[in-house]
Amino acid sequence: MTAFADLMAFQRETEALGQIAGRLGWDQETMMPEGAAEQRGEEMAAIEGVLHSRRTDPRVGEWLAAAQAPDAGGQRALDLIARAYGRNACLPARLASEIARVTSIAQGTWAEARARDDVAHFLPTLEKVVALKREAGQALAAGGYGGGDVYDALLDDYEPGATGDGIAAIFGRMRPRLVALREALLGARHAPEPLAHSFGKDGQMALARELATAFGYDWNRGRLDLAVHPFSSGSGNDARITTRVAETDPFNCFYSTIHEVGHACYELGIDQAYLLTPLGAGVSMGVHESQSRIYENQLGRSRAFTGWLYERMRETFGDFGLRDADSFYRTVNRVQPGFIRTEADEVHYNLHIMMRFDLERQLMSGALAVADLEEAWNTRFHADFGVRVDRPSHGVLQDVHWSVGLFGYFPTYALGNVYAGCLNKALRAAVPDLDEGLARGDASPATGWLRENLQRHGGLYAPAEVVERACGFAPDEGPLLDYLDAKFRALYGI
Amino acid sequence: MTAFADLMAFQRETEALGQIAGRLGWDQETMMPEGAAEQRGEEMAAIEGVLHSRRTDPRVGEWLAAAQAPDAGGQRALDLIARAYGRNACLPARLASEIARVTSIAQGTWAEARARDDVAHFLPTLEKVVALKREAGQALAAGGYGGGDVYDALLDDYEPGATGDGIAAIFGRMRPRLVALREALLGARHAPEPLAHSFGKDGQMALARELATAFGYDWNRGRLDLAVHPFSSGSGNDARITTRVAETDPFNCFYSTIHEVGHACYELGIDQAYLLTPLGAGVSMGVHESQSRIYENQLGRSRAFTGWLYERMRETFGDFGLRDADSFYRTVNRVQPGFIRTEADEVHYNLHIMMRFDLERQLMSGALAVADLEEAWNTRFHADFGVRVDRPSHGVLQDVHWSVGLFGYFPTYALGNVYAGCLNKALRAAVPDLDEGLARGDASPATGWLRENLQRHGGLYAPAEVVERACGFAPDEGPLLDYLDAKFRALYGI
Repeated sequence: MTAFADLMAFQRETEALGQIAGRLGWDQETMMPEGAAEQRGEEMAAIEGVLHSRRTDPRVGEWLAAAQAPDAGGQRALDLIARAYGRNACLPARLASEIARVTSIAQGTWAEARARDDVAHFLPTLEKVVALKREAGQALAAGGYGGGDVYDALLDDYEPGATGDGIAAIFGRMRPRLVALREALLGARHAPEPLAHSFGKDGQMALARELATAFGYDWNRGRLDLAVHPFSSGSGNDARITTRVAETDPFNCFYSTIHEVGHACYELGIDQAYLLTPLGAGVSMGVHESQSRIYENQLGRSRAFTGWLYERMRETFGDFGLRDADSFYRTVNRVQPGFIRTEADEVHYNLHIMMRFDLERQLMSGALAVADLEEAWNTRFHADFGVRVDRPSHGVLQDVHWSVGLFGYFPTYALGNVYAGCLNKALRAAVPDLDEGLARGDASPATGWLRENLQRHGGLYAPAEVVERACGFAPDEGPLLDYLDAKFRALYGI
Repeated sequence: MTAFADLMAFQRETEALGQIAGRLGWDQETMMPEGAAEQRGEEMAAIEGVLHSRRTDPRVGEWLAAAQAPDAGGQRALDLIARAYGRNACLPARLASEIARVTSIAQGTWAEARARDDVAHFLPTLEKVVALKREAGQALAAGGYGGGDVYDALLDDYEPGATGDGIAAIFGRMRPRLVALREALLGARHAPEPLAHSFGKDGQMALARELATAFGYDWNRGRLDLAVHPFSSGSGNDARITTRVAETDPFNCFYSTIHEVGHACYELGIDQAYLLTPLGAGVSMGVHESQSRIYENQLGRSRAFTGWLYERMRETFGDFGLRDADSFYRTVNRVQPGFIRTEADEVHYNLHIMMRFDLERQLMSGALAVADLEEAWNTRFHADFGVRVDRPSHGVLQDVHWSVGLFGYFPTYALGNVYAGCLNKALRAAVPDLDEGLARGDASPATGWLRENLQRHGGLYAPAEVVERACGFAPDEGPLLDYLDAKFRALYGI
């Protein structure tokens, strides 16, 4: 028992230090004075250095070898620590620090390139990042992660147990139905009314707070602030969210808020017994995204909830140019091809992901050279979306992910949508009067069901397992596609 | 050179981690959701643990033994590291962690006792804190700190080079003149007009920002927020301040702000070359307080500056019951005996400190038992202030310091006043048209002179030395007493 207890005590401090690093990141995006940026870089490097040395501390290996778990939860904690420790042990220290160094510079270079629409400015840096991440993937694959596959070994960090082939199979089944739906919708007559209004910042923020409350966000353990790019941050009893405000587009603020509330409710809903343990955070990026997505889309963009939101917006902002709740429902669910993933509707979103997934798999296998990436992107985009990319910031430069070395991350967004589809089916069956609450602006029964059936487990079960336990069936893409078909065909009257 | 470079690199990371701990403290008092408090306790303990193990790391001792400084600044950095390392080495790990544990609980117990006016609730805890701090003082004294004196060994942590006897001598010379002045003022006819107004929160905060700007606070490297107890936090390029707002007492907000701006300007004014080095922070509590005090009192409560502030308050709040700038000047400089140190006027403030200094020296020497402290406090207060303490929260329970083990800290407040008196004399001689700027709401020439002559040096010189270099004379209490005599006798027309 001593090795187990010693390891858990050590790990608990590491988790606490990890929370601190997260808090600093939150501060940096919300509160930090601009002139502090360079100093903050050193501060972040110092805490990351402490975390890295703890995560690779040889004592962890010794404790793992000797530890006996007292129960299943303890065994799962050991497994999670062993997995992270084993992955770190595969990576030479030189490679780990080179990745940290290069990606921290690359993010700035990417931001410059995007602002100037200058792909060439970014390519040499992206070459380095891709080479380093391939090397990391090879080292992990050689250590047995991802079943020996380079891409899968990277993917495994964000979605343990998922494989590129498995995701490709899901995507292969999704694509025809999504494309057929998209074509049918784009062929239908559907002209949403334009918003004829400016939406004041204070009113938007007040309503954003109301939305978070409606979804059961616990203000005693969280807060809402402004940030350039909305995010959620923190685990345990301190899970904060951010949003942004554009006076001409209130839906950006409102649906960003609901999305981040989903992430935060997951963290806040985890069993208190798991606080600051390996089980005390969401189990994977895909499951995390399932929470943010079901809050944002299946619940937040439902006819019932949008009816309430329409009334609250009229009370807050007066007449804003949409004649009734049905018109409002059509507006927040408008389907149209667009360049930007983060602005995509529910039907197009997964097509964006499929494209990135195929391209990044090719980059990692070496089948696609970085020099050819832009052309590959533009060709594929035209084929998938029927529109020619007009500038790099609308194309290959739009997302930060690759610049910071996140290869294998994109598919977790689509997996989150698939899981959200399954959870929505099970939730609707279990809580038949859900829409009555949503129509009153009360989504807390959904949070209650999700907390009880999924969120509270934290890292206890593997990603697909926890979704299956919640749903009562093995997750697949069917419920998501059924939901999209039913919702959008009805909405467009086809 | 390698030992020196290695030590400095290690120290730089330690300083960065120390900044992180400070940032967390700021977050805790300003932003943190209430329900996160317990988790935050673990997070703080984790980072403090990392800091403690770095500060006592045996490699530091080895590097110190081998290091050769390349220049005088490097030597001073070595001396400061050696001093901190040597002090830590004197304290057994068991004692250090026991002090951390007991004082963290004691602060809560003290807050409860103060809220309930229940000294007995606090005494057992204070007994423990006093015993532990005496033990620490004895260990440090045995190691040669404080010249072998227990109290001086503790004082040395806050005001290196100062001694209890030296401070007692200064206080001995100050007391007769302060008492004579106080008696003369209290005997004079002087009835300030009451404030007939409520001062809105937004207006107070807007004016507080204006005040910070007037004193040259760099908003690019700082920010202002609300906190229960105003404080400043952070070094280098991230020095934040807080204030509080009471609608009936705007001066609390305004002078707290100016006070904290003084602390923050000191940190922000330090030479950038010292960033994240042992020289990159204010050199002592006394010198720090000299900056906050000269901003708040000699500058902020001057006739010239209050004339401008009066006009700005009239523009912001309308007629608020004071008929002219002279009346306003009298109001913000009203001399009256009161129970609470933090609310004391410039004349009474040091008498509060003298009392605490004598009592805590007796506690540390063992001449006064904790059981007798309240009676000693009340007797002494009546003798010094002519008023009987009406309840413990107005007496022995009013300050947090002793509960968290800060023995030897109080006298640095009075030393700060003494230094501020000296700096004010030198500043007025060097910048003869200072009042013209102050009358226009521009105190930046004062910040400029203080930055150039004192603030920029950070930890390069010993406390008394940096004040002497700035002033051109060895600091003593004379200039402060001359200033108080001149200001308050004129103000009261005696």
